[in-house]
Amino acid sequence: MISLSIALIKQSALVKSIRRSGVFAFSVTLLVSVSALLSPVHASQSTHPNLVVNQQDVLTMRAAIKQPGSFKQAFEAQKAQVDSLLTQPILVPVPVDAGGGYTHERHKKNYQQMYDAGMMYQLTQQQKYADYVRDMLLEYAKLYPSLPLHPKRKSRNEGKLFWQGLNEAVWLVYTIQAYDFIVSSLDDTQRKTIETGILLPVADFLSVQSPHTFNKVHNHGTWATAAVGMTGFVLDKPELVETALLDLEKSGKGGFLRQLDELFSPDGYYNEGPYYQRYALLPFVTFAKAIEQNQPERKIFEYRNNILLKAIYSTVELSYNRLFFPLNDAIKSKGIDTTELVIAVSIAYGLTANNDLVDIAKQQNRILLTVDGLKLAQAIDANKPSHYPFNSREFLDGKNGDEGALIVMRQHTPTDQAIVFKATAQGLGHGHFDKLTWQFYDAGEEIVSDYGAARFLNIEAKAGGRYLPENKTWAKQTVAHNTLVVDETSHFKGDVKVGNKNHPIVDFYHHDDKLTLASAHIDTAYDDVNISRTMALVSVKVDDKDTPLVFDIVEVNSDNSHQYDLPLHYQGQLIDSNFARQAATEKLTPLGKQAGYQHLWLKANATPKKGVAKVTWLNDNGLFYTHSSIVDGNTDVLFTQLGANDPDFNLRNEHSFIQRTNSKQHRFVSVLEPHGEYNPSAEYTLNATSNLETLTYERQGDLSIVGFSVLSNQGSTAFVLAINHQTKNSLDNNKDNNTTQRFSYLGKTYSFDTRYQLIQISQ
Amino acid sequence: MISLSIALIKQSALVKSIRRSGVFAFSVTLLVSVSALLSPVHASQSTHPNLVVNQQDVLTMRAAIKQPGSFKQAFEAQKAQVDSLLTQPILVPVPVDAGGGYTHERHKKNYQQMYDAGMMYQLTQQQKYADYVRDMLLEYAKLYPSLPLHPKRKSRNEGKLFWQGLNEAVWLVYTIQAYDFIVSSLDDTQRKTIETGILLPVADFLSVQSPHTFNKVHNHGTWATAAVGMTGFVLDKPELVETALLDLEKSGKGGFLRQLDELFSPDGYYNEGPYYQRYALLPFVTFAKAIEQNQPERKIFEYRNNILLKAIYSTVELSYNRLFFPLNDAIKSKGIDTTELVIAVSIAYGLTANNDLVDIAKQQNRILLTVDGLKLAQAIDANKPSHYPFNSREFLDGKNGDEGALIVMRQHTPTDQAIVFKATAQGLGHGHFDKLTWQFYDAGEEIVSDYGAARFLNIEAKAGGRYLPENKTWAKQTVAHNTLVVDETSHFKGDVKVGNKNHPIVDFYHHDDKLTLASAHIDTAYDDVNISRTMALVSVKVDDKDTPLVFDIVEVNSDNSHQYDLPLHYQGQLIDSNFARQAATEKLTPLGKQAGYQHLWLKANATPKKGVAKVTWLNDNGLFYTHSSIVDGNTDVLFTQLGANDPDFNLRNEHSFIQRTNSKQHRFVSVLEPHGEYNPSAEYTLNATSNLETLTYERQGDLSIVGFSVLSNQGSTAFVLAINHQTKNSLDNNKDNNTTQRFSYLGKTYSFDTRYQLIQISQ
Repeated sequence: MISLSIALIKQSALVKSIRRSGVFAFSVTLLVSVSALLSPVHASQSTHPNLVVNQQDVLTMRAAIKQPGSFKQAFEAQKAQVDSLLTQPILVPVPVDAGGGYTHERHKKNYQQMYDAGMMYQLTQQQKYADYVRDMLLEYAKLYPSLPLHPKRKSRNEGKLFWQGLNEAVWLVYTIQAYDFIVSSLDDTQRKTIETGILLPVADFLSVQSPHTFNKVHNHGTWATAAVGMTGFVLDKPELVETALLDLEKSGKGGFLRQLDELFSPDGYYNEGPYYQRYALLPFVTFAKAIEQNQPERKIFEYRNNILLKAIYSTVELSYNRLFFPLNDAIKSKGIDTTELVIAVSIAYGLTANNDLVDIAKQQNRILLTVDGLKLAQAIDANKPSHYPFNSREFLDGKNGDEGALIVMRQHTPTDQAIVFKATAQGLGHGHFDKLTWQFYDAGEEIVSDYGAARFLNIEAKAGGRYLPENKTWAKQTVAHNTLVVDETSHFKGDVKVGNKNHPIVDFYHHDDKLTLASAHIDTAYDDVNISRTMALVSVKVDDKDTPLVFDIVEVNSDNSHQYDLPLHYQGQLIDSNFARQAATEKLTPLGKQAGYQHLWLKANATPKKGVAKVTWLNDNGLFYTHSSIVDGNTDVLFTQLGANDPDFNLRNEHSFIQRTNSKQHRFVSVLEPHGEYNPSAEYTLNATSNLETLTYERQGDLSIVGFSVLSNQGSTAFVLAINHQTKNSLDNNKDNNTTQRFSYLGKTYSFDTRYQLIQISQ
Repeated sequence: MISLSIALIKQSALVKSIRRSGVFAFSVTLLVSVSALLSPVHASQSTHPNLVVNQQDVLTMRAAIKQPGSFKQAFEAQKAQVDSLLTQPILVPVPVDAGGGYTHERHKKNYQQMYDAGMMYQLTQQQKYADYVRDMLLEYAKLYPSLPLHPKRKSRNEGKLFWQGLNEAVWLVYTIQAYDFIVSSLDDTQRKTIETGILLPVADFLSVQSPHTFNKVHNHGTWATAAVGMTGFVLDKPELVETALLDLEKSGKGGFLRQLDELFSPDGYYNEGPYYQRYALLPFVTFAKAIEQNQPERKIFEYRNNILLKAIYSTVELSYNRLFFPLNDAIKSKGIDTTELVIAVSIAYGLTANNDLVDIAKQQNRILLTVDGLKLAQAIDANKPSHYPFNSREFLDGKNGDEGALIVMRQHTPTDQAIVFKATAQGLGHGHFDKLTWQFYDAGEEIVSDYGAARFLNIEAKAGGRYLPENKTWAKQTVAHNTLVVDETSHFKGDVKVGNKNHPIVDFYHHDDKLTLASAHIDTAYDDVNISRTMALVSVKVDDKDTPLVFDIVEVNSDNSHQYDLPLHYQGQLIDSNFARQAATEKLTPLGKQAGYQHLWLKANATPKKGVAKVTWLNDNGLFYTHSSIVDGNTDVLFTQLGANDPDFNLRNEHSFIQRTNSKQHRFVSVLEPHGEYNPSAEYTLNATSNLETLTYERQGDLSIVGFSVLSNQGSTAFVLAINHQTKNSLDNNKDNNTTQRFSYLGKTYSFDTRYQLIQISQ
């Protein structure tokens, strides 16, 4: 009865409620409808395939590849690739290499090739594809039982086929699906040889023999439980499924369900950040899809208020111009077109038919040979307009959503301005000491940037392709980020254990059509220093043109005197500053000794006069950016370039400037503005100097009063922005019973009862 | 009679003969056919318009904008833009600013807007467009007579509307065309006011009042003569046309025809390089088109063996992945989509209907509202395949083709490997001291690079948008290039006058399907040092795969001992070297005091052991590059980063390494190879280390014997490349009577009678 009534609710409403954080009052009833949509077929335990793809799916796909369209094209391209594969010898070498080495890459290729050939068998029913998978599995069955632990193994996460057990789990996640595709073509002897020679031994190695990883609530644990659980489904071993879901002791303290409970925040944010989130996502959605086929009664996709769908949407949204925000340890070239997210988006589309996802799939530019891939292919072929709504959002962090948040502020389309304001928890071992840092993006590019991880993935000459030493000495350190450093020491003194126990508190987040505004503070990054930061992405109308401005107010308070450094890492070529700089022209020396400072060459320093200090740079996107700061005459500006104490040339030689002051209390108030255009190809340069004419700041009780004026055709247009710092939530919910706040500005009094007031006070 | 017989020759053959340097045996007869094609209509002196576009063209275009297609789209887009223009006030300010300033940019916009509105009047016959041009010209007629010389004028090239006379000439080139479009709509008073108030005064200023520029055989002179000559056509003043063609005294020592004789080499190469070539091209082709309309009997496009067409094709070919090779003073973002080349390509297509140009027009992605633009639009709409054949080519330099050459070596498509080997003359004031330098491109990107010009065009804060001081102290200096520096002194001691008098000699250039090979030498760059360089772009088959390799042999000879530095400026991140480096981790100091060395921070140094020294870097295109050099154990390798003595942060902080040795004679022998792939998005790294296993060099008489082997599936595949250094031309022309050359390699004797021999000597 409930599901019938729910069917009347428009699917788009359902989708919105899932994607957006916030109210989930309807979730219980909605879930029923999702369930009703998902599982028209009750999976039979005795038929194959039955993991991500079931027998009915295969029939649908076999029909689809006979019709013209992008699915057929994808099939034919894949078939040509697999056919060429079949002409090459099967190679199952004894494992010797670490990541990037020959045997490592060979075994990685093998699982993908088995998967592809297995799927090709299902689609074409040609025996040669099944034989290829069978023969390779028989080789593995010969090799594996005699293998010792990998000679290049890492402690605590050992593998046999690979240097780390993580890769071994990934291998099984793919291989068990390949086996599921071809098992019906095998005779009993072959089945037995393969199952007892390789599949069960790997599953056993990953579970019983690796309890530390298997039971761990961590993405490594997710890969292991997914691999083992899916093996349980295919080999009809319910015991394996149970331990995968609940941990080796079936206690529920670890296992897949516990991972679903703890690894994502209620908003689907993964605390290591999107780089690891997209990686972690794959075993989650793959195993979940297999559970859905085999145990639909679990309603796994509805588990914890649709946490998996939320995680998929979150991953998509934690990107700018197709690349993920490089939070924590993150390699910057990863983006929404990664395999993991291609699979996740297809599964989400299969579940929800949300048309917004078609836009993402188009950008991913890859059609999967699954029934969900088919649905997306058909949607793409239908060419219906689709624009994924990238909006400002607060992603709560922590399993209960109470450990800070990542705040994304956006204007307009995915390539317009975006701010990432990071007030999240530490993010475990891959976390950076970057409380309250920010990044800024505009016109497709990074403008105020985060270094990401110091790592050349799989390049042997660069520390074996692992994280470089500079990841620890530079990339994780506070000074590598756009946030406050006290006394040249990183947050939590660089101790990850302390970091994991503490997190910032978001005081408010507000978004409306005019601006996005947020404030957060942390009192635990340093023993005796309280830091709060308020950021706003605002667009004011000047001469009928939208003029975007970023406001940044950092307040530092201590009872003791300290050195306060506020670095800003900019991408581009320095054009000018409105104050004199003393450049180091004949000698460069490092700025400091530790906490990342040892990697910064000091290229110039300056002490701007009291007033507004401006620094302008030109980004590769052809736009100018000016950072304007209110300075007191005692604040130094240090211009640095990365690269000191880097004997192996591991670091990118990026640029930053650091505002430095010594005091107990200090307030850094600044505005960043994009302006003008440099177009040497068409030979014009427009508006190469800042449009911000004046900038003032005053604190009046709970209010920040920011006055500013912008150059306009008529001379100058003046504004005042008043921000109410009260942490009262009602301010952001437009409730009626707010206290009226008053402030005076240039001799006039103003009043308002909302989170902020932005007024144009002159033409 | 001749033209009839020629009509049978296929147009494509004609086109090939024009574009390619080399044999022009047929040129005399072919020219007749070009003439026959060009001028079906004899232009009437008394009708307007009649410069680049004539009355018949206008009728054709008026018909075309009624038909669907990209021409109509371009028209509509342009119309919308012009319509919005008409709603804005006409602004003709008193000139005060230099380049990039408001009045400068305003007057630049004005001429373009008059041109666009004038053309719109012709296409739509709506009076409002003509009125707009008229009103603006009347404003100019009011302003101009009272103007003094520009307050920010440059000496020897003064302007009134602009800081330099060059801009004034450009203004008139556009404005006279705009006037030609609307003159028929004016009454006599208006005509007289405009002609005597602004057009003739500007023409007079550019000619009689600026004889130095007007008579100069230089691109500034071309702009001036084009402006004045076209004014002569429109205002029916044959005197102006004559002086434009022959100089103020009609002596023929200067003027447009002399410029055609001297500013391009017989191959259409312009000695300042492609950056200035595309700029110079516009007045050449525009004025030539106007001459063709008004004095078809001059056969101006056939002048000097079709020199203008050759110049257009050369400009196109002096590019890689759409951007011009940054030779001499060149801003790197300029490419084939610049307005000048859009116009030039359309005119060339109008003359030749060469289908290859459609490919270029597609890449330019801009349809011109001219009848030539219409022809290209129709060709683009027809969607016939077109691939411009970018091939290896030797572009002879010097007006007689005897002052060295620019050699471009290419493989396959425009985004595959390309080498630029620069053995050209100095290139006047914009030339760099870079004799025998080279650049290398691969997979769309610069790999071994040239700095180009140190300039931020029109950015006021950067030296007023002019060339920066560092253009002279760095960009022009020899060490800023990939060529030999003796005793930390630039070629010709950095004296441009000496440079202009001397040039390298190309000893041979050879191209066939297997490789491109060239050798050149110069004995005048230094008093007592002879330098020769031989370069080859080779592709060898290894495991059935084409493996590209760049060979580079630099020979230096002197009777005295010197310090020889051979820099290589690489684009990318250093990955590894096969020798130990001592890095400067705590302090950086400049490498030298002068000649550009003062701008290089020394980041590391090394003295590799005797053998083959390798340096590997990773480019942004995701490929690895290894430079392998034969070293004697006494050669240092210095790793540098640009940026010392740069107080204003004007320089890009690029990387290089310099091989340094002290001796009388030295031979630098090296190989550059692209290899592998880094794909952090798909998480794989392939082949990150060099495939070149061995490298040996021996000189046997006239022969260079280079032995090398490449890693292959079977272990290693060995080759020997023998190069015959005899300067006998017959070697490159496959003549029969060559002397047989013998050489021995690894105990065997080989013989050949051609330019080179490349043999695989082992599996």
